[in-house]
Amino acid sequence: MVETIVWTDAGVVMIDQRRLPAEEVYVTCRDYKEVAEAIRSMVIRGAPAIGVAAAMGVALGVLRGNAPFDEICDTLAATRPTAVNLFWAIGRMKKLYASLAGEPAGEVRLRLVEEAQRIRREDIAINEAMGRHGAALVPDGKTVLTHCNAGALATAGYGTALGVIRAAVAAGKKIDVFADETRPFLQGARLTAWELLQDGIPTTVITDNMAGHFLKSGRIGCVIVGADRIAANGDVANKIGTYSVAVLAKENEVPFYVAAPVSTLDLSLASGGQIPIEQRPASEVTHVFGVPVAAAGARVENPAFDVTPNRYVTAIITERGVARAPYEESLRRIVLG
Amino acid sequence: MVETIVWTDAGVVMIDQRRLPAEEVYVTCRDYKEVAEAIRSMVIRGAPAIGVAAAMGVALGVLRGNAPFDEICDTLAATRPTAVNLFWAIGRMKKLYASLAGEPAGEVRLRLVEEAQRIRREDIAINEAMGRHGAALVPDGKTVLTHCNAGALATAGYGTALGVIRAAVAAGKKIDVFADETRPFLQGARLTAWELLQDGIPTTVITDNMAGHFLKSGRIGCVIVGADRIAANGDVANKIGTYSVAVLAKENEVPFYVAAPVSTLDLSLASGGQIPIEQRPASEVTHVFGVPVAAAGARVENPAFDVTPNRYVTAIITERGVARAPYEESLRRIVLG
Repeated sequence: MVETIVWTDAGVVMIDQRRLPAEEVYVTCRDYKEVAEAIRSMVIRGAPAIGVAAAMGVALGVLRGNAPFDEICDTLAATRPTAVNLFWAIGRMKKLYASLAGEPAGEVRLRLVEEAQRIRREDIAINEAMGRHGAALVPDGKTVLTHCNAGALATAGYGTALGVIRAAVAAGKKIDVFADETRPFLQGARLTAWELLQDGIPTTVITDNMAGHFLKSGRIGCVIVGADRIAANGDVANKIGTYSVAVLAKENEVPFYVAAPVSTLDLSLASGGQIPIEQRPASEVTHVFGVPVAAAGARVENPAFDVTPNRYVTAIITERGVARAPYEESLRRIVLG
Repeated sequence: MVETIVWTDAGVVMIDQRRLPAEEVYVTCRDYKEVAEAIRSMVIRGAPAIGVAAAMGVALGVLRGNAPFDEICDTLAATRPTAVNLFWAIGRMKKLYASLAGEPAGEVRLRLVEEAQRIRREDIAINEAMGRHGAALVPDGKTVLTHCNAGALATAGYGTALGVIRAAVAAGKKIDVFADETRPFLQGARLTAWELLQDGIPTTVITDNMAGHFLKSGRIGCVIVGADRIAANGDVANKIGTYSVAVLAKENEVPFYVAAPVSTLDLSLASGGQIPIEQRPASEVTHVFGVPVAAAGARVENPAFDVTPNRYVTAIITERGVARAPYEESLRRIVLG
């Protein structure tokens, strides 16, 4: 399995997710601005992965010493608005930085670099724990439907939703996966199918508009997706199209699971209506790999995320256990420990 | 407005819908086998349009005289299984042919060519009548969501779902249109946006997985789609993804209308479960205009249609009036007149 993101002496190295699976190209970000641009342009994407990238970007900015600390943090925070893991990781780096006030500059740099690397390692362990909690929920002998890519590529490794799938397979369950292609960026067709096939997990790509048809058909045992931000009431922001899949799952009595680390929970927001939804460029919709696919002159909407109300969510799988409705209580209990 | 399909001395001329909107290229089918191949490869598509094409194919086959009548009909009937208009049109040509037994060959040829041209002209008039019946159902000042292309390009002209939209605009309603891009063949992004923009109707392209998000947002006043086959109980087969849109419309209390000519009704089938669903080649999903968009080695499913149960259908708009539940009664009344 390739590495999504690693710290090296030369800088932060990421696999370029815009070019997968056709090409495996690694990008080296040599200063924090390059990390910010890599997040903005989706060289790296996925809520946990951009959290790790932001932490490494902060460490890199301080190490290179070419901007004030606050400016480094602000630049990285301004890249993408929806995934809260980005702000969580920057907040964690800020807290450490503040605690090091008065320490020698060399010590501060060392500690920040260590912290960013720790966040990366922790993320992998968190995903493995999520897998252990979630594997039992996956029905044996059926198909798991997933949307977008909540896999190793969306995290430091192993994956959230795909981590649960990997754990279910490791536990001996006979399952296969249906991956929504996930227009416009095609994370499902390009990334999810690619990484699951590398693990030998049978994977079928379908267009997004086929999900309902197969949920109705009876072959889907459960849906598992990741999340970009979860409000205190259990409303889930995730890749555009998640809401549709959730409604169609409920309509067909198929369980709909969200797998996300505690860092994706944003208990400061009462409900999903307060989650900012990023609007991405029209060209992502009108062109596929540079090829025009829409009539010239048509308007375009391109919200990158939608919000799934908590009533469609069967359970939320975290590294600390599985939360169920009422989510106000269960999520608060998970966060407070 | 371009012509979808016309009869000429040189053969049956169609605009190549695989290449729109980038190129306006016309294809001339010089014998019935070329018409069959044009239907199969989706040079022409849309239930009413392939009905017209099949009728013209039968006429062309008899005119050229290079195959027995039954072989001509069987070849055209074997092109695509779901849209019943194809079989309806071939059936109408067969009936006329049988009634001409004993007539001079020249007379038979002339009458069949006339009949095919009549089917084309009737289709345009039928769509205009559908528009008159349906326009009143379209809420003023809101957005109409449509899926696939049920427009002039899917018919001999004017369109079914888009005919209703055109009639609502002609009646002075201030509406705009959201067009699902409709993967894999992109009929919405390529064809619906293209023909509505030619008419000056504001059109926004969205990816299929955004439809739910916008239905939830409150801006969609109604959904209008076409149909490929409607069973006696009002279950509707239409382009893959229609079922999802219908469920999401109902969940958000948005009316869901189907616009289809009486020739799309198949009262010989009790319910939608009996409608054959065409499976199309995997390459339509894995490639967009020849560019690979999915991981190599992934399996693919590509059902071209799905079935929307009658409980999600607010009304069915035909040229003879608007049918509502219970559809067993209302559709039978419409067919029997």
